Amino acid sequence: MRIPILKLHDILLVSIQWELDDQTALQFQEDLLQKIHETGAKGVVIDITAIDFIDSFIAKVLGDVIQMSKLMGTRVVITGIQPAVAITLVELGVSLNDITTALDFEKGLEKLKQELGD
Amino acid sequence: MRIPILKLHDILLVSIQWELDDQTALQFQEDLLQKIHETGAKGVVIDITAIDFIDSFIAKVLGDVIQMSKLMGTRVVITGIQPAVAITLVELGVSLNDITTALDFEKGLEKLKQELGD
Repeated sequence: MRIPILKLHDILLVSIQWELDDQTALQFQEDLLQKIHETGAKGVVIDITAIDFIDSFIAKVLGDVIQMSKLMGTRVVITGIQPAVAITLVELGVSLNDITTALDFEKGLEKLKQELGD
Repeated sequence: MRIPILKLHDILLVSIQWELDDQTALQFQEDLLQKIHETGAKGVVIDITAIDFIDSFIAKVLGDVIQMSKLMGTRVVITGIQPAVAITLVELGVSLNDITTALDFEKGLEKLKQELGD
């Protein structure tokens, strides 16, 4: 199972609409980095509204993919972080210090465009 | 396996990035109509760039979901129809007469916005 990544001009849009298993999460990490490389995308919005709960492995993969995307020169905005997910991320110490977040997809896209100076 | 449907303001975005099996196609039909109902979306862009080949069942489901969406008052734009897919659709007589199409996702979204008068 793979998570589709949409390209809209210089931004990639991802909506994770089901709980991730480990294999799907790793595949997503690989796919996203590959797509950033191929498209030269300036920003990524990842919506995780549908995820009610994440375990430590998925939290790590998510934190990693954000750091990796930033290393590649791409801004990442995470939207729709649910209360339980926020708790897990903080408790596990996943580094989301300098990550932009937003309530929903539309607001995330707006924030990203502002940051990119569009 | 389900196909994620992204909501961006009053438009739904769908990118089908792998060949559809029958069950996934039917599930997508149901999910899309449900999402149109929930969100009151005015338009849908479905990108099928990744589909190189479709069989008669998938062609019918695709034709049906377009007609159904229109019945619900939503405009549908299909983008990225590959040569072999265009051939199949015409040969099977799938009714796409009054369907808006575009080369890629960005152009499809532009066309849809024009049609919606944004």
